[in-house]
Amino acid sequence: MSGPQAPEPTLEGQADASAGSPDEDAAEGIQHSHRMLSFSDALLSIIATVMILPVTHTEISPEQEFDKSVQRLLATRIAVYLMTFLIVTVAWAAHTRYSGLGPVLGRQPVGSTPTPSQACMMTITFLPFTFSLMVTFPEVPLGIFLFCMCVIAIGAVQALIVLYAFHFPHLLSPQIERSAHRGLYRQRVLGIIVRGPALCLAAAGFSLFFYPASYLLMAMVIVLPHVSKAAGWCRAQLVGPREPPAHSVEVFTFDLHEPLSKERVEAFSDGVYAIVATLLILDICEDNVPDAKDVKEKFQGSLVAALGESGPHFLAYFGSFATVGLLWFAHHSLFLHIRRATQPMGLLNTLSLAFVGGLPLAYQQTSAFTKQPRDELESVRISCAIIFLASIFQFAIWTTALLQEGETLQPSARFGGREHAFMFAKLALYPCASLLAFACTCVLSSFSTAIFHAMQIAVPFAFLLLRLLVRLALAGLRALRGLVGPVLARPAPGAADEAQSPLLPAPC
Amino acid sequence: MSGPQAPEPTLEGQADASAGSPDEDAAEGIQHSHRMLSFSDALLSIIATVMILPVTHTEISPEQEFDKSVQRLLATRIAVYLMTFLIVTVAWAAHTRYSGLGPVLGRQPVGSTPTPSQACMMTITFLPFTFSLMVTFPEVPLGIFLFCMCVIAIGAVQALIVLYAFHFPHLLSPQIERSAHRGLYRQRVLGIIVRGPALCLAAAGFSLFFYPASYLLMAMVIVLPHVSKAAGWCRAQLVGPREPPAHSVEVFTFDLHEPLSKERVEAFSDGVYAIVATLLILDICEDNVPDAKDVKEKFQGSLVAALGESGPHFLAYFGSFATVGLLWFAHHSLFLHIRRATQPMGLLNTLSLAFVGGLPLAYQQTSAFTKQPRDELESVRISCAIIFLASIFQFAIWTTALLQEGETLQPSARFGGREHAFMFAKLALYPCASLLAFACTCVLSSFSTAIFHAMQIAVPFAFLLLRLLVRLALAGLRALRGLVGPVLARPAPGAADEAQSPLLPAPC
Repeated sequence: MSGPQAPEPTLEGQADASAGSPDEDAAEGIQHSHRMLSFSDALLSIIATVMILPVTHTEISPEQEFDKSVQRLLATRIAVYLMTFLIVTVAWAAHTRYSGLGPVLGRQPVGSTPTPSQACMMTITFLPFTFSLMVTFPEVPLGIFLFCMCVIAIGAVQALIVLYAFHFPHLLSPQIERSAHRGLYRQRVLGIIVRGPALCLAAAGFSLFFYPASYLLMAMVIVLPHVSKAAGWCRAQLVGPREPPAHSVEVFTFDLHEPLSKERVEAFSDGVYAIVATLLILDICEDNVPDAKDVKEKFQGSLVAALGESGPHFLAYFGSFATVGLLWFAHHSLFLHIRRATQPMGLLNTLSLAFVGGLPLAYQQTSAFTKQPRDELESVRISCAIIFLASIFQFAIWTTALLQEGETLQPSARFGGREHAFMFAKLALYPCASLLAFACTCVLSSFSTAIFHAMQIAVPFAFLLLRLLVRLALAGLRALRGLVGPVLARPAPGAADEAQSPLLPAPC
Repeated sequence: MSGPQAPEPTLEGQADASAGSPDEDAAEGIQHSHRMLSFSDALLSIIATVMILPVTHTEISPEQEFDKSVQRLLATRIAVYLMTFLIVTVAWAAHTRYSGLGPVLGRQPVGSTPTPSQACMMTITFLPFTFSLMVTFPEVPLGIFLFCMCVIAIGAVQALIVLYAFHFPHLLSPQIERSAHRGLYRQRVLGIIVRGPALCLAAAGFSLFFYPASYLLMAMVIVLPHVSKAAGWCRAQLVGPREPPAHSVEVFTFDLHEPLSKERVEAFSDGVYAIVATLLILDICEDNVPDAKDVKEKFQGSLVAALGESGPHFLAYFGSFATVGLLWFAHHSLFLHIRRATQPMGLLNTLSLAFVGGLPLAYQQTSAFTKQPRDELESVRISCAIIFLASIFQFAIWTTALLQEGETLQPSARFGGREHAFMFAKLALYPCASLLAFACTCVLSSFSTAIFHAMQIAVPFAFLLLRLLVRLALAGLRALRGLVGPVLARPAPGAADEAQSPLLPAPC
């Protein structure tokens, strides 16, 4: 979704821009483009994440009769949240590809007029409203219809921008401008951009008479890139690789299978984490500041007493915040060791982020239990599941990266490297802790909330402990190897050699 | 507020880190530090901006008797919002200085353990809650006390980090590490960091027996850097400049008067704009999705009819969103022409952002008027004032930049440059439009809302028109000069010369 990057086709601005001194222009263009990209990353991550709000604010009215109906409602909303989150992420990935066309492409609109970019941004920010309609009225097609219209409008603007850029090739990056296969490029880029909106057009059509088909088509938007990749891989395994076309290296630049830009994956992830933290803050600012009149009447003007009443909320807040912070920390240290993010890693990262976006729901569930104690056990289990899924996908990123460690990892983090063992331990901590908490709630069901809070507050200390344990274990291994080493006829390593050598036994 | 940058003093991690290959380390350290800084910029801009929420959600209960008391309440809240926004900005500016100490400083904590950074981040995100308490109970000292405690805790952690970094000088940037005046550096940096918390300590003390003094002291935190600068400037004018100490060039690096990092000013501003857009989205998602039961009962299941009822809200939403978007656009094109941001420009930018943060209030005021028509005129005027102040401070940034154009501007934007005239026109648009709308409401008070919405929706078109008008005016001027030029005995300019020559008549 390339809102802010729309060039303005009616004015001859680009002629002016290219008249300036080329050095300055290039420097300005890149810097500017960088700011544009950060802003659109931030906006898209916000849009993807705020969709958890209708889920957290599911109000269960006291006259609701069936437990089942509430559960079904919540399950529907979670499903819609996941779907919309993934669709926005697909749009973001398309934007990542698309903005690789050339840094200059991001430059023109701001120099001239704001209109196309404004319109696009406004359409994007309207998406959460259509999501909200979908979540609240899953059976009414209006929400789906509006959503599809937004996606189609955005796709149309993106396609126009690409056509415009290929019509004035000096807007493209020099590599593409000089390429003999520019027509092929255009075709591929347009294909990537138009695919999603085309499916949405079909979904909008179906929404008028048979809405389940619309949901199916929208799910296809999410899985299509991955299905087509898997299909290609299977075919390559069965038939052997297709003969590469003569210009394969160039075309590959726009292939969906190429590694993603690590910086943009980080920016998008940071946006999600920051918004999740904000949603927690907003919740506590809105719900836990006591009413002035209440304080005067119920607590005889004592603010401290009034605050004391929402003590469990603060506990839940600190627990959830620690979880968000530590997951961000794990994500951060993970990406510190990663050099390039491949497509499957990007998918796993998206899935992890989708569940991180669910953490405000976990907070809401575990802080609201005081009102409905009978739901306590279930809330705690949902929260454990959210934390487990968010962290297990992070773990999966790491294992996937290890499969292609030569391409994806920094040398220091490769198998047997210094940071390798600690990384594994760090990423395994949250999955283990949440599984443990889940298991405990099965045995000690009446203490489930206490167990959950204890888990959330204990994990930060576990991180500290872990560092010490891993160090001790490594020192133990080294000592062991020192004893066994001479038997295996290893040359005695020098001090510098020791620092570089693998600290774990070799894999085989 | 340097939460995420806390090194972990108990473990010997940094010895490990420095053992790696130096090239990799440097590259990793810088990239990592960059991500950390972006994240803290985002977090601080969020914290500063969400404080508008208690103001927008001021509920005016029906039994409220006096108009005056509501006005007084709103005015108090706006004042507290502005104060807290500015205090967070001061903290951010201190963080900007502080993180200049060395890129490696940001590296250590993530490699080792999360504890100090986690604690600091959690303390920072707790600030909005203390603000909320202050806003809701301005006379109860608890809010002030908690706020001051947070600031002191953060300051203490920052000071410890700095002491730690100067104790292990290889964590600092090489320039400082090699400097002979390291002790002086430390003193100055500590002075900048400790000043705010020290004032807050005094404020916390006063809050226990005389709370107005606390507000005064907190206001001092904001103005102190600027007052001390103004005092220094006045003294220099009266007495003549102090004799510069021998190491003045080095010490100047940490002076508060040096230009701010343009990238970080941009990141902080982008954060504020993105959050303001989010708050608008959240408002419309929460308030304007009709209730499922209502739709069934009141509108016979017609969702479209139910949505039609909140039509004016959508109009207000699109108007406010266009305003936020265009102010961001103006900010963007402004900073595209700026090379370095001086201290006064930073201050003006902060003030502009403080009022941009007030835009959700303008939205709330102009979309809620349907409930209380008698307040309509006043709401519209408050909204005009917010837009006027937000845009006039942007205009002031530009004029301030022109005063030192050699230092602050890109060559193409200097006086007489190609972009100069258009920039002026662009930045003057919103102040003029909001003043005009304000004046119109005085004459045609019964149409005030219509006027306001017309203004918000007309301005984007005015931007388009402006570009054409400025081009026409410039072409006219050029044609005129072509006629007058030979009379003034100017050499006939060549085509290339023409492109570089000033398009406006020389200033004198």
